[in-house]
Amino acid sequence: MTSAPRPTPDLDPAEQLGRYRAVRSQTEALAAPLGPEDQVVQSMPDVSPTKWHRAHVTWFFETFLLPELPRYKVFDEAFGYLYNSYYESVGERHPRDKRGLVSRPTVDAIADYRAHVDEAMVDLIGQRHDLWPLVELGLHHEQQHQELLLMDIKHVFSSTMLKPAYQLRPFEPSPLATPLTWSRFGGGITDIGAPGPVPASHAAPAADRAAYTFAFDNELPRHQALVPPFRLANRAVTAGEWLEFMADGGYRTVSLWLSEGWAAVQNNGWDAPLYWERHDDGWMLHTLQGLRPIDPAEPVVHISYFEADAFAAWAGARLPTEFEWEHAATASGPHPAVSGSAVNDAASHAFHPQAAVPHRLEARGRVGDVAQLFGDVWEWTSSAYAPYPGFRAAPGAVGEYNGKFMVNQMVLRGGCCVTPTGHVRPSYRNFFPAPSRWQFAGLRLAADR
Amino acid sequence: MTSAPRPTPDLDPAEQLGRYRAVRSQTEALAAPLGPEDQVVQSMPDVSPTKWHRAHVTWFFETFLLPELPRYKVFDEAFGYLYNSYYESVGERHPRDKRGLVSRPTVDAIADYRAHVDEAMVDLIGQRHDLWPLVELGLHHEQQHQELLLMDIKHVFSSTMLKPAYQLRPFEPSPLATPLTWSRFGGGITDIGAPGPVPASHAAPAADRAAYTFAFDNELPRHQALVPPFRLANRAVTAGEWLEFMADGGYRTVSLWLSEGWAAVQNNGWDAPLYWERHDDGWMLHTLQGLRPIDPAEPVVHISYFEADAFAAWAGARLPTEFEWEHAATASGPHPAVSGSAVNDAASHAFHPQAAVPHRLEARGRVGDVAQLFGDVWEWTSSAYAPYPGFRAAPGAVGEYNGKFMVNQMVLRGGCCVTPTGHVRPSYRNFFPAPSRWQFAGLRLAADR
Amino acid sequence: MTSAPRPTPDLDPAEQLGRYRAVRSQTEALAAPLGPEDQVVQSMPDVSPTKWHRAHVTWFFETFLLPELPRYKVFDEAFGYLYNSYYESVGERHPRDKRGLVSRPTVDAIADYRAHVDEAMVDLIGQRHDLWPLVELGLHHEQQHQELLLMDIKHVFSSTMLKPAYQLRPFEPSPLATPLTWSRFGGGITDIGAPGPVPASHAAPAADRAAYTFAFDNELPRHQALVPPFRLANRAVTAGEWLEFMADGGYRTVSLWLSEGWAAVQNNGWDAPLYWERHDDGWMLHTLQGLRPIDPAEPVVHISYFEADAFAAWAGARLPTEFEWEHAATASGPHPAVSGSAVNDAASHAFHPQAAVPHRLEARGRVGDVAQLFGDVWEWTSSAYAPYPGFRAAPGAVGEYNGKFMVNQMVLRGGCCVTPTGHVRPSYRNFFPAPSRWQFAGLRLAADR
Amino acid sequence: MTSAPRPTPDLDPAEQLGRYRAVRSQTEALAAPLGPEDQVVQSMPDVSPTKWHRAHVTWFFETFLLPELPRYKVFDEAFGYLYNSYYESVGERHPRDKRGLVSRPTVDAIADYRAHVDEAMVDLIGQRHDLWPLVELGLHHEQQHQELLLMDIKHVFSSTMLKPAYQLRPFEPSPLATPLTWSRFGGGITDIGAPGPVPASHAAPAADRAAYTFAFDNELPRHQALVPPFRLANRAVTAGEWLEFMADGGYRTVSLWLSEGWAAVQNNGWDAPLYWERHDDGWMLHTLQGLRPIDPAEPVVHISYFEADAFAAWAGARLPTEFEWEHAATASGPHPAVSGSAVNDAASHAFHPQAAVPHRLEARGRVGDVAQLFGDVWEWTSSAYAPYPGFRAAPGAVGEYNGKFMVNQMVLRGGCCVTPTGHVRPSYRNFFPAPSRWQFAGLRLAADR
Repeated sequence: MTSAPRPTPDLDPAEQLGRYRAVRSQTEALAAPLGPEDQVVQSMPDVSPTKWHRAHVTWFFETFLLPELPRYKVFDEAFGYLYNSYYESVGERHPRDKRGLVSRPTVDAIADYRAHVDEAMVDLIGQRHDLWPLVELGLHHEQQHQELLLMDIKHVFSSTMLKPAYQLRPFEPSPLATPLTWSRFGGGITDIGAPGPVPASHAAPAADRAAYTFAFDNELPRHQALVPPFRLANRAVTAGEWLEFMADGGYRTVSLWLSEGWAAVQNNGWDAPLYWERHDDGWMLHTLQGLRPIDPAEPVVHISYFEADAFAAWAGARLPTEFEWEHAATASGPHPAVSGSAVNDAASHAFHPQAAVPHRLEARGRVGDVAQLFGDVWEWTSSAYAPYPGFRAAPGAVGEYNGKFMVNQMVLRGGCCVTPTGHVRPSYRNFFPAPSRWQFAGLRLAADR
Repeated sequence: MTSAPRPTPDLDPAEQLGRYRAVRSQTEALAAPLGPEDQVVQSMPDVSPTKWHRAHVTWFFETFLLPELPRYKVFDEAFGYLYNSYYESVGERHPRDKRGLVSRPTVDAIADYRAHVDEAMVDLIGQRHDLWPLVELGLHHEQQHQELLLMDIKHVFSSTMLKPAYQLRPFEPSPLATPLTWSRFGGGITDIGAPGPVPASHAAPAADRAAYTFAFDNELPRHQALVPPFRLANRAVTAGEWLEFMADGGYRTVSLWLSEGWAAVQNNGWDAPLYWERHDDGWMLHTLQGLRPIDPAEPVVHISYFEADAFAAWAGARLPTEFEWEHAATASGPHPAVSGSAVNDAASHAFHPQAAVPHRLEARGRVGDVAQLFGDVWEWTSSAYAPYPGFRAAPGAVGEYNGKFMVNQMVLRGGCCVTPTGHVRPSYRNFFPAPSRWQFAGLRLAADR
Repeated sequence: MTSAPRPTPDLDPAEQLGRYRAVRSQTEALAAPLGPEDQVVQSMPDVSPTKWHRAHVTWFFETFLLPELPRYKVFDEAFGYLYNSYYESVGERHPRDKRGLVSRPTVDAIADYRAHVDEAMVDLIGQRHDLWPLVELGLHHEQQHQELLLMDIKHVFSSTMLKPAYQLRPFEPSPLATPLTWSRFGGGITDIGAPGPVPASHAAPAADRAAYTFAFDNELPRHQALVPPFRLANRAVTAGEWLEFMADGGYRTVSLWLSEGWAAVQNNGWDAPLYWERHDDGWMLHTLQGLRPIDPAEPVVHISYFEADAFAAWAGARLPTEFEWEHAATASGPHPAVSGSAVNDAASHAFHPQAAVPHRLEARGRVGDVAQLFGDVWEWTSSAYAPYPGFRAAPGAVGEYNGKFMVNQMVLRGGCCVTPTGHVRPSYRNFFPAPSRWQFAGLRLAADR
Repeated sequence: MTSAPRPTPDLDPAEQLGRYRAVRSQTEALAAPLGPEDQVVQSMPDVSPTKWHRAHVTWFFETFLLPELPRYKVFDEAFGYLYNSYYESVGERHPRDKRGLVSRPTVDAIADYRAHVDEAMVDLIGQRHDLWPLVELGLHHEQQHQELLLMDIKHVFSSTMLKPAYQLRPFEPSPLATPLTWSRFGGGITDIGAPGPVPASHAAPAADRAAYTFAFDNELPRHQALVPPFRLANRAVTAGEWLEFMADGGYRTVSLWLSEGWAAVQNNGWDAPLYWERHDDGWMLHTLQGLRPIDPAEPVVHISYFEADAFAAWAGARLPTEFEWEHAATASGPHPAVSGSAVNDAASHAFHPQAAVPHRLEARGRVGDVAQLFGDVWEWTSSAYAPYPGFRAAPGAVGEYNGKFMVNQMVLRGGCCVTPTGHVRPSYRNFFPAPSRWQFAGLRLAADR
């Protein structure tokens, strides 16, 4: 059995088209504040230029879907070389670390490319309801790149002295964060992974059907795991708590660190999270709204796995496993609507994690006494990214989606402030190498029973 | 609760002294074929010179035990700087990648150092029966370095055109390896980790007591895990099977590889295991007995995790998890005497893995129908090296032993042909980074039910 | 005595203003074909983005001249950090190899900056005739960057598969190049360096005065050197001759190469000049007019010093010293009008060196029987870049102009096809490190008597 | 005309044999204080292990001379691969930066190799008087490696905390150095290079003949150069003067430095010469006699060209050109006996430069009022290493001796405290890259008239 992504069932063509248009226009909205110069720059090998993201997600539809459209004419043959990300089986690619050298095609040409593909995709969706699984994969892929686009432009803007803002917005510090409390979970044999498929012949209630949304292949197969009893904190660690860790010599105390983490601290001169700058009157933070003071109540963000692990050791706790996290997130039945402070949540549009203050927690990913599970910050878990029992990559290029990254990566859970709304769920597994810091990653503490 | 290593119980002073002397003299026996020039060289950052190994394991006793001996006089204060490996809490160290620059102290001075410490240790063991747990840790530590010494000198000798042999021994190819067969395991909730401590007050039968030998902290706490049904191959993959993989384009077929593995293949130009050399009339192998032809029946060895994983994909199978491996190794009750073809097994002294031919299998780590579990080659598992539930590093320098390496490493099981006899057991967890190839690592195939 | 640059004497304010405007508008004309995306990219550390060049040359005037203008308001304080190139004494700088990360200020903002500074400079020139020496230095500095701008955008465009053209222009191969012949020079004690200053009180004829144009400090002091008899080729080495060198195994014959050159060949895989691409039907060349076939009659260009030296060895000749070159270029009296095929020569605008065919040679830097001395390709000499006897850098930031590069660089002479007209002269010393290839460098052969 | 090395004329076979034995046994004497472990280590790519030096100089005789001896049997074919340094035309070589990985052949085997070759060479010299030119080249080559051997073992011993001494010798500070004074030289057309050959038919007086000793090809052809008037200091710069430079912020004052030199200061954290260590009570110096305080009167040594140039700028002076240096060294006629404090000068054996105190200067390389020209420290000149007019490398492997290094190196003159006696002369040209510091290099100031 192969682990193909699981599509959302029973969408009619109009719903399909609506979803396609919503996701595609969201990408353009996110790029709108950026000039052509901004969209060209690659500030490190992990970062891609904005115009690359806009083209690459389009290339996905052109490459994997549009060959199904009779008489479709490829926009430009060279784009296959320039905008393939890592699909080795699709052919040669422009080197990843040299995406910032590509001045042509221009930003305008990329806009033309998107329009050309959109026109054809609208035709195709109208004609071929059966291709929805792959279309939906393409849309979720594009949503992943929406988050990357924001992570990446933040890094680009942080690379120069000017530190321009992506969005102008006055800074208001939060009230105090809600105090840290612990919830106990009994553990036991628990279901892990995306909920099972609804048999076509089965008359499931509508409410149940709604639970079976899209899932990536790495969330499958759903299976059982034995989770020992554990405790979990009610919210993410705050910037104020991180300042205490720093003040207590956290970055200089070797016994707190993994060996590889300590080497990273030494070699990179880390003494604070990414985007923190020491100024004469205290620490400042580069955000998508520009440089501003640290807010002690907000979740700490832009830390590596090494730092998350060291902080937990300092706090006399540990990171949760991904199974503990998922168990907690689903403990009280089908997961609630997942809102968080995600990027297209009209109420917030913060582009930065928000403090876990009591009035906000009601609305944000609360499960029992554990809150802030969804949105705000991706939470590092202590689990290495590995296939679930029975996982086998799907054949062909789409099978390259997830499985081939299953080594030397750690799992993060819950989404963050720039994850598109609707793109996260309890079984969602994000992953990054332990040293990475430019994603919106924070941590939540766990402990043995 | 902290995870201190678990000592072997109930050894009387004479037994303690006997073990101390046996291990210490084994190290000297392994270094005996090497000249002073051989003992200085470091052929890559991961490799240490022989004289460094001889001094470092001695430093362990001097640093962690001999302060307990009244009036002990430190041999040379500078050795603390030169021969600390990675105990950050003990002080500054000579840089790991520059161990090959240390010409002084000479090999003779290291011999004096060992004699000086041995004399004092004999005194201490006689006086302080209670220190046995730490003495035993030091001896197991020295046994690990006995294996490293052989791995390292093999790499040193492979670095020059001359390719000298560590041991002269005529090469005799094996008969055909036993055919590959599969054993089925039902899985379920299973005990993982070193067997529990024998309560001091408990009158356990001698046979049971024997089962409770030394264990490292990373094998603890013993706990339960849910293992799904699986199949396991009866023996390790052979060099002959690896030649088929190569002939079928294994090293050129991107779809078989993890993304990071493919990058390693490209960047390093890998087209065969480490120590294989293409000659006009076929592949040759550099061994501790010098250069000789590949024996198709012998286990393939000196492969990275990436290669093991790609081979398994090519074979339509996968690597076992470390829990599956341990479950199989203990399925039929207390594990058998673990012999393998380990280094101080007088019958073999092969310094190279031996073919799984029927007459040898009886004697080598057979558990039910699964053989060759112990000795020959370390077997890559698909499990990232992680703490067991409830693990907490012991306080102080000894706590740096294992926990701080628990990221970006994969677990290997079962010991190899240069593992000292008695040093391996079903719960033993070895670990290396995925790209490492200079350890004696091979693989065994697994599959879903 | 310090070696300050030598200004052109006796220009009236209107002439000064005319020169200022001509140079400044030429820069804008060169940038005009480039979009905002093109102007951001830095394809290697040696290359700067177009918009950086446009801003940096402007920063020179703002920093070194405009403090003299009463009430001048600095355009943006951050520009001092972003657009200082290497004037250590002026303050901190944005790292040179990270100029491609600067998306803001935008291309439009740079245009505003240029207009702001130009307005102020026009005022200043009107008020302060005495500042001309520094204004003229700024203009020659800007002309150097005009050449760099073209070298750099060529490299940027060559970095991607698309290989866009800077200028569209049909390719027409040349007739045969004029055959190589040798001219003999008797040598002896000869004057080297820019002609001496005209004493203010001296009634020099107008024709003589014209000879005393601007010179950089590194062309001074004028002094005597002893040049042995030598021979010099009548023209630069052609691409056709280079193809013979390649066909004869030039890039594979170690005895032809300097030791460091051979290492460069091995490490970089050089087997042809930069911008040459092997296609199925022969070698193609990336030019500022896009990709097109090699023209055997055109001068070879984009070669390192190592390649030039190896070719000369292969040809049984050598490179000229810079004194031999200058001696030849001035042998028949005051040098002729220097035209070459320089960038703002309306007749050509080739952006690529032109073949030395007979009818062109009359117009191109002929001195006696030696032609093509000026324009087309910078000619590598065998002279390391060193101070002339008596040279001492001028005090202050302007003193950093040339002297601090006087180690590990080789001198090139004569200008090239993208050197602005009027910017080159017999005493002009250009310099690059021996491995550099992105400048328009070729060679001319020399030999002992 | 090719520039072959120039042999010493008119030696009879007994003299030849005497010289051969003297040089060969001197190498063994220099290696005698070193154990096998010391002779294996390579502390940086530029350094070679002692046993490599001992073997390589022997390989030179075996490769270039012994094929002339009938029935000579090569000692070991593998040595040709291991001990070729850079003669590309002779064949493949062991990589230079991996010489420290070669544990076999052992030190004893190298001694056997030397004895084997010496026996054959004695035969050959007895039979073939005509081969002297190449034998003598081999001996001068071996003398160069005697100096390298000492430079290299000093670097090896400095690489570890123990800092062992090559030679035990109590430290005695010098009296005050003689004050710095200047000598004026009128310059003019002067002869440069080794004196011309004595025609075989010419009845030259014995005294003249003595002047025509061996010279390397890079000292030829002798030719004329035009040297402007200049001044030269009477002695080398002292460590005490260097301390003043440091105290005045020399290493932190950018305006003193070449651009590439300033980058080296920043990137390497240079704040003192190589082998200087800051201790609580002042600067200490690692020498071949171990660690000891700085002696202010001794010449500063182990500085790069960049540092020499910066010091000269700080002192308001400059470095001499190599022609100025040679002119001064030969100004008063045939050069005197060149003694210096060279390595086999029985009176000193200091292995470190000696202070220029008055009573020593009489005996040390005085020419007129300029003293300390020979021995003590190699003196950086401002001249890039380039061929003399008319130089052409000799054909074949011996032609690789010098010419192929003529780029990106600076010339040093005069020999140093570890240069073998008789190995230096006024025309001798040593050369190193500008950043190198492990040779015994210092400086002498020069100035314009």
